[in-house]
Amino acid sequence: MQKIIPYAHTILREVVDKGEIVIDATCGNGHDTLFLSQLVGHTGKVFGFDIQEQAINQTKNHLQHHQCHNVQLILDGHEQVKHYVSEEIAGAIFNLGYLPKGDHSIITKPKATIQAIQALITLLKKKGRIVLVVYHGHTGGAEEKQALLDYCTQLDQQYFQVLQYQFINQVNNPPFILAIEKIKETN
Amino acid sequence: MQKIIPYAHTILREVVDKGEIVIDATCGNGHDTLFLSQLVGHTGKVFGFDIQEQAINQTKNHLQHHQCHNVQLILDGHEQVKHYVSEEIAGAIFNLGYLPKGDHSIITKPKATIQAIQALITLLKKKGRIVLVVYHGHTGGAEEKQALLDYCTQLDQQYFQVLQYQFINQVNNPPFILAIEKIKETN
Repeated sequence: MQKIIPYAHTILREVVDKGEIVIDATCGNGHDTLFLSQLVGHTGKVFGFDIQEQAINQTKNHLQHHQCHNVQLILDGHEQVKHYVSEEIAGAIFNLGYLPKGDHSIITKPKATIQAIQALITLLKKKGRIVLVVYHGHTGGAEEKQALLDYCTQLDQQYFQVLQYQFINQVNNPPFILAIEKIKETN
Repeated sequence: MQKIIPYAHTILREVVDKGEIVIDATCGNGHDTLFLSQLVGHTGKVFGFDIQEQAINQTKNHLQHHQCHNVQLILDGHEQVKHYVSEEIAGAIFNLGYLPKGDHSIITKPKATIQAIQALITLLKKKGRIVLVVYHGHTGGAEEKQALLDYCTQLDQQYFQVLQYQFINQVNNPPFILAIEKIKETN
């Protein structure tokens, strides 16, 4: 059975085509940004957000190393997405928690995360998907996990389906996936 | 994203080969039995269990209609599996709850279900999978769901991985999947 990160990518690969626009809501070390960049190809575009300069720089280096030129990196919170993006998007990914090898006290916050999801949902194409990789073992992680589950479970099933994909017999609070698919236009 | 029944079949299709032995622990209307029969082909074998004669008869008719001759139907509880099967198995499937269009008061019970899983786990090949489709909206369903989650979460992650695959924003307690994969031999 696919592990969490490969499955997150599978979920996006199934619905994102070359030439489309996608969002990396939490660039971090840039691994997902690179994946998205290659997924949409040179005719597509990635908007990559992070609130930490260290993450933006790491991602920039990672992309340059792989000669990717279709990414706009934005040093700002993902809840500001509508200030930067107005086009229809095919997908988005979040890695929630802290920056690996960074300052573990700087973490994603439920309010901002949900604001970002709410904004992205309105930009999402029909059959587009928003994938959340929910790390929750750190201080503050349990609260964010619960807030996201509460938010996702109340999404109207007429317009969205939300999948939870989780390995349930592992120690140390491993991450799990929440995947939101728009199944019908909301307006 | 694949719905519950198609995903249950995908999980088995990925690890079951032609010529292998598999178990339908709850024949019901015979749909999964037919799927398994076609999956292992005429060189393989399916053992199909159900405690209701109505289910065994329905399944027998369904298989005959599709000219499947590799299934042994057993009118007995799946917790008795070791009385009938001693060979290595590649996979098993359970549809928990009551027989659709049958007597809704006859339901699978947590104790027997877990006994069956414990027996099947010892017969399972490495990388083999046991898939539980957990219906839990009926009387007694919540208890069985909780007992299965408790059982599955304590399976040693050195030997098994257990995936929960669930749509979380749907009304009326839709079924979800628990999939147990043996990743290492236990003896």
